Amino acid sequence: MNNFEFQNPTKILFGKGQIEKLSKEVPKESNVLLLYGGGSIKKNGIYDQVMSALSEHKVMEFGGIPPNPEYSVLMEALQVIKKENIDFLLAVGGGSLIDGTKFLSAAAYFEGKDPWDLLTKGRAVTKGIPFGTVLTLPATGSEMNSGLVITREETKEKLSTGGPALFPQFSILDPEVVKSIPQRQLANGVADAYMHVMEQYMTYPMGGLLQDRLAESILQTLIEVAPAIMKDPADYNAAANFMWSCTMALNGLINKGVPEDWAVHMMGHELTALYGIDHARTLAILAPSHYRFNFETKKAKLAQYAERVWNVTKGTEEEKATTAIVKTEEFFHTLDIKTKLSEYTDDYAATAGTVSQRFTKRRWTKLGENQSLKPDDVAKIIEMSY
Amino acid sequence: MNNFEFQNPTKILFGKGQIEKLSKEVPKESNVLLLYGGGSIKKNGIYDQVMSALSEHKVMEFGGIPPNPEYSVLMEALQVIKKENIDFLLAVGGGSLIDGTKFLSAAAYFEGKDPWDLLTKGRAVTKGIPFGTVLTLPATGSEMNSGLVITREETKEKLSTGGPALFPQFSILDPEVVKSIPQRQLANGVADAYMHVMEQYMTYPMGGLLQDRLAESILQTLIEVAPAIMKDPADYNAAANFMWSCTMALNGLINKGVPEDWAVHMMGHELTALYGIDHARTLAILAPSHYRFNFETKKAKLAQYAERVWNVTKGTEEEKATTAIVKTEEFFHTLDIKTKLSEYTDDYAATAGTVSQRFTKRRWTKLGENQSLKPDDVAKIIEMSY
Repeated sequence: MNNFEFQNPTKILFGKGQIEKLSKEVPKESNVLLLYGGGSIKKNGIYDQVMSALSEHKVMEFGGIPPNPEYSVLMEALQVIKKENIDFLLAVGGGSLIDGTKFLSAAAYFEGKDPWDLLTKGRAVTKGIPFGTVLTLPATGSEMNSGLVITREETKEKLSTGGPALFPQFSILDPEVVKSIPQRQLANGVADAYMHVMEQYMTYPMGGLLQDRLAESILQTLIEVAPAIMKDPADYNAAANFMWSCTMALNGLINKGVPEDWAVHMMGHELTALYGIDHARTLAILAPSHYRFNFETKKAKLAQYAERVWNVTKGTEEEKATTAIVKTEEFFHTLDIKTKLSEYTDDYAATAGTVSQRFTKRRWTKLGENQSLKPDDVAKIIEMSY
Repeated sequence: MNNFEFQNPTKILFGKGQIEKLSKEVPKESNVLLLYGGGSIKKNGIYDQVMSALSEHKVMEFGGIPPNPEYSVLMEALQVIKKENIDFLLAVGGGSLIDGTKFLSAAAYFEGKDPWDLLTKGRAVTKGIPFGTVLTLPATGSEMNSGLVITREETKEKLSTGGPALFPQFSILDPEVVKSIPQRQLANGVADAYMHVMEQYMTYPMGGLLQDRLAESILQTLIEVAPAIMKDPADYNAAANFMWSCTMALNGLINKGVPEDWAVHMMGHELTALYGIDHARTLAILAPSHYRFNFETKKAKLAQYAERVWNVTKGTEEEKATTAIVKTEEFFHTLDIKTKLSEYTDDYAATAGTVSQRFTKRRWTKLGENQSLKPDDVAKIIEMSY
């Protein structure tokens, strides 16, 4: 096991009726900016619950932040924050909206010329406006971590940053929101959380015995509840386990002391930036090819995953590992998620080249848990995903 | 799943060589009181590492705090804290020492006459002197929670309290300390952590699917590493998994949203208070009888535990549940821990009556996850443990 540091100060308020606790969790004297997306919170009643809880607070609003939070829109929100002396942000939405809020938290204190530098200079963010979240879409785990991903349409880029200042003060997780989420986004949420675990788990066995079992626990729970929530998103208990699994999948716990991969995410972000494919679906497209391409270095862990998560008891290590990849693909298919790039776009032929060139330009030449994947390898993995 | 709130702000520094980070983690301008126990830290080199890291801090010492932190000794330490204007406590030791430090943190701000009231009045502690820990004995999880248990020889009592002010600011967990721990205390640590998980897990299935799997992960890891650390405590990777499992067993995560029992602990504390039996061993004495006495309400979960943790695949639910209790007893025996009270003392005949009378006096009349156990039931469970 490797050395590690772990600290996660976010307060989680989980369950039915928790939104009313906003009245106590948001500091009384603050100038609050409520941030939200396309307006679904006005249809499903969450907006009303939030405003009711904050009836004695001073609240301004900024709606219309799109999925894959767009830089230019966030820049408009930043002007509001500065002009209105906002000192508390409340994100009501999914992971994209929370990521956008984190970016604004950091950008408000950024002293350079262009806040985009926060994403390109690679420095940890140590100062930000305090913020809380009300999660409306279980998936990304952003509600209990300090990372963020931002998209910029102008350059078709999608980049990430984070830092200790960017943990939410609190996050409210009410599983009752799940019943109003469309099937497609539920499927994305399951796949996204699943792949978050896989990025931290599917490397090689190195003695993180507890970490492995914790990761497997989340995978098993997602596999167990996925059919139930896809069939009936109003199944509260299935929704609750789904929601808590998504949070636990990326709250900084299961990766402590063990190697991580994240190459699938780095490649996947490009497919979203280039073609607008849902984030979770880009991961489902790339993961099987990634595991096949890196079979030799990952086969021991793939076999462990086959045994413990998919109950594959027979066969050699290679056979189990191969079965594990197929099982993973089949799981995505049960969610009605397609796993080939050509099933999403006809314009895929240049993708491998485009992405590998971008990685070369950014000097992303050491991907994966062994830092062994070069842009040429990235091109091959993407080609295998066509 | 039940509603819950979760927040754990403690910073964990885990691994080899982490003790030197004390120089940064302990605030520079503070008046530090270093608290320790019987002096083993002076033999195993930890004291020297700590003092070296704090060479530029102002540090006073208070050693000699005994296992099962004794109230009268803590009262002496409290005088030092007040007299010397101590404003940061550093606990270097095991769970008892950390519990004692938490009590001092709270007692320093206690405004009533007798700090013992902190333990008898049942109020959450919301104000305390900040403190950090260097853990030398994996077992109790106190290094990453806000609870404490204190013993008072004068009245032969052992009582608990806690509160949001009593999370350590940081805890340093260096698995290399494990190699200098005597076999008996290693066994106690494994059994203690195991029973912490069991108290939060061995109730009834109620849909906490992820929580169940997380709990089972810790049990499986403890079962996996116990033989390795008992054979060779210098096995760093086994020690690291043991140490992290003990912390994760009681850091407030696995009990979120699910019912808890804790009756074994409440009874066990009395056996320690009456006979001085090691805490972990009191749990091993009582747990099997507790599960047998409550077989009807616990059998579904016992069967799940049999299947998932002990790989018992055959038999009826009752048979699996019965086997699970035997497996648990056998696990304690592999640690050379005896599971009958009569194996620890000849003077046991009055125990059941004494403990049930104490519980009646304290109005502890609703123990267990169903709040159904009365003092008469407690007497029967203890008799079954003779």
